[in-house]
Amino acid sequence: MNTTPHVVIVGAGFAGLYAARILGRAPVRVTVVDRKNHHTFQPLLYQVATAGLSPGEIAAPIRSILSNNRNTDVLLAEATGVDLAEKRLHTHDGEVPFDYLIVAGGATHAYFGHDEWEPLAPGLKTVEDATEIRRRILLAFEMAERRACLNDMHDPINIVVIGGGPTGVELAGALAEITRRVLAEDFRSIDPRRARIILIEAGPRVLAGYSPDLSYSAEVQLKHLGVEVMTGQRVMDVAATYVTVDGQQLPAAVTLWCAGVASSPLGKTLGVPLDKAGRVIVEPDLSIPGYPNVFVTGDMASVRKADGTPVPGVASAAIQMGEFAARTIVADLRGKPRQAFHYRDKGSLATIGRNAGIAQIGRVHLSGFTAWLAWLFVHVYFLIGFRNRLFVIWEWAWSYLTFQRGARLITGQSNWISPPKVPEAAPHEGNDEATARTHAQIDSVR
Amino acid sequence: MNTTPHVVIVGAGFAGLYAARILGRAPVRVTVVDRKNHHTFQPLLYQVATAGLSPGEIAAPIRSILSNNRNTDVLLAEATGVDLAEKRLHTHDGEVPFDYLIVAGGATHAYFGHDEWEPLAPGLKTVEDATEIRRRILLAFEMAERRACLNDMHDPINIVVIGGGPTGVELAGALAEITRRVLAEDFRSIDPRRARIILIEAGPRVLAGYSPDLSYSAEVQLKHLGVEVMTGQRVMDVAATYVTVDGQQLPAAVTLWCAGVASSPLGKTLGVPLDKAGRVIVEPDLSIPGYPNVFVTGDMASVRKADGTPVPGVASAAIQMGEFAARTIVADLRGKPRQAFHYRDKGSLATIGRNAGIAQIGRVHLSGFTAWLAWLFVHVYFLIGFRNRLFVIWEWAWSYLTFQRGARLITGQSNWISPPKVPEAAPHEGNDEATARTHAQIDSVR
Repeated sequence: MNTTPHVVIVGAGFAGLYAARILGRAPVRVTVVDRKNHHTFQPLLYQVATAGLSPGEIAAPIRSILSNNRNTDVLLAEATGVDLAEKRLHTHDGEVPFDYLIVAGGATHAYFGHDEWEPLAPGLKTVEDATEIRRRILLAFEMAERRACLNDMHDPINIVVIGGGPTGVELAGALAEITRRVLAEDFRSIDPRRARIILIEAGPRVLAGYSPDLSYSAEVQLKHLGVEVMTGQRVMDVAATYVTVDGQQLPAAVTLWCAGVASSPLGKTLGVPLDKAGRVIVEPDLSIPGYPNVFVTGDMASVRKADGTPVPGVASAAIQMGEFAARTIVADLRGKPRQAFHYRDKGSLATIGRNAGIAQIGRVHLSGFTAWLAWLFVHVYFLIGFRNRLFVIWEWAWSYLTFQRGARLITGQSNWISPPKVPEAAPHEGNDEATARTHAQIDSVR
Repeated sequence: MNTTPHVVIVGAGFAGLYAARILGRAPVRVTVVDRKNHHTFQPLLYQVATAGLSPGEIAAPIRSILSNNRNTDVLLAEATGVDLAEKRLHTHDGEVPFDYLIVAGGATHAYFGHDEWEPLAPGLKTVEDATEIRRRILLAFEMAERRACLNDMHDPINIVVIGGGPTGVELAGALAEITRRVLAEDFRSIDPRRARIILIEAGPRVLAGYSPDLSYSAEVQLKHLGVEVMTGQRVMDVAATYVTVDGQQLPAAVTLWCAGVASSPLGKTLGVPLDKAGRVIVEPDLSIPGYPNVFVTGDMASVRKADGTPVPGVASAAIQMGEFAARTIVADLRGKPRQAFHYRDKGSLATIGRNAGIAQIGRVHLSGFTAWLAWLFVHVYFLIGFRNRLFVIWEWAWSYLTFQRGARLITGQSNWISPPKVPEAAPHEGNDEATARTHAQIDSVR
């Protein structure tokens, strides 16, 4: 009979991984459960979506990251619910008993009641999302080139990014750069520099989480790169070839969704109070009411700062919560009393292209090149911890600064087919071309 | 009216790219048509399938490779046929008129009348094939770990490679290495070193294209790595969980097909005589009978050496043919007479793991570490030409020698689902989980 306490961690994002790191040195058994085999370094995911980096440069197998933790198992499985009384995590493939549970399932896209928009305007949370967005963007230019070359048709290419938060701003800035600099060299019949990159924000300013002066700076920097910024404009409808903004149809070759996130649905299965965004309202020690052995961390936790404002859904907050939950378990085992979680704001950074950005670190506000340098420093520093090899930084920096070609692959089945359409009829079995087309379409719509 | 001769190249493999490179300096317009946006460096594709390299390290966008050729257009389109009389190439999306045509569509898998085996035993020709094989292999270990962890079941993992040619030998060798060295570090409940790698060859020896002493050496080196080599054994049936070999069922968690290739179906549309393998029987100058302006090159061409034996389907032969066809066009335009193509055998190399291999260069036969060094030298030399940046070699060598983690990603929808099964019913429309599962299964069966 194994009496070593068993800690189960659901999700290997920042919160889960940093919890596992602390617990690797503790007198416990650890099982990390994730439905992917890899951790995704989400702050750089937009670089994969815009063909600046390859998936393998921002994702690494969870097993490899944790291979030195001899007390840690990694399990590829999808968690479906928690039996709090019996202390069991349910997965699609079986149950995992636990003594302590750290729930760190992260967030997913939210379409605010318009789930039918998801296939038309994909969001950006996973490596698969990123390669799908990359495929759509590169394919839009390939198809325009083909139409120009074969039929002498010159359609405009609009890329519409919905949502002016950090992801939307970073995506729009990177798209402006790749179209104006990289793709411009490669095409003969079309001019990718004429593609319009349109960023739509419903609120009065982009990057509303930052101070107004930095929002203003970000907007100026975006416009300087060639992004059209539309603030105070509400998206009414999303269709395959256009977006309706305040009653007006805006043609869109590619539409991307960066307008909302929702907490992982795992939160609902706990049967405890949630906030409006579906996040679990946790106790001061991040445990859930009535179950001190169950913690909720990262984007799934609804936590407030000392001033009453919510802790933001950023990597730094997730890391702090994951480490706090792990340290609380270690303290429990040593018979020490519990502490309350306090979020330390380490500042916020957003990048806009390759040498622009904004940063808000305490009372210090930076913008332009200095903000970008700060951003680069922080991310390179993070990746050192993440991949743990100095060389990789150079590899990464090289890829990043040289717009490496390998990242601009279109993979998937549907390289040559016409623009994705939602299939009219149910796909039938078989291996013929019609089926292959339908699958490709479904793939591109998931 | 543009009177510059227009050369259309179908396919951006080795033959097509090297033809385009020569024609970039010629007084012609060039259009390269391919159904992928990237060239794939096929000799290293098995490294992607076995999680040694990432797709972006062995593939590069055709546009980028040719971006310095100002006279060259690249068109993402699937060629469907040729109108020889009207000098037009048909594609799914329109017609491309030509003065000269170089057909370089390459080869695909051949299942010798058993196309139903394709979803059960994928072959290796494209980046998508490679990532699908990688997904299946990594998933087999993840699912075994999950069964061991959740249900205390310990199933054996057999990986069966059908076909003992260069691809089969390289795959089997690399699989032995990754299971014995890399994966062994990562798993807790199973021991990946106990996975069986079984290479099945119908003929009496592996690598039949080499001399018998080198075949023998290759077999010894494979066995030393832990590969079980079964020669003179014929595969009678391939099923989802086993392979029938000479009447006996061999359980197989993953089955890979390296037993046959067939020429691109584009050859048939030319209406000229083909050999048994479907390759076009070309004139001595690589043109087709009656149409001196149409050339067939690379794996699609049936060409014989001076001694009457066929020119092998290797990269070196494709490069020589592509360059020859391009030079013949340049000579035509200068009014010079045509020459006959002569294949120069530059030797053959195969690698077996990271420090073993065989090489046959003229009368020189190498095996073991020296053969591997020769292989490494040739491939690094090739990649310099291919990616044209010294730094990339170091990046590549580093990734290769350190088994970089990023390459071991499982991407796709079906990370957590149970083993792929052929769907019983036709998938229905919608976005619910059942549909997602069915798509994942179809995906993994394509």
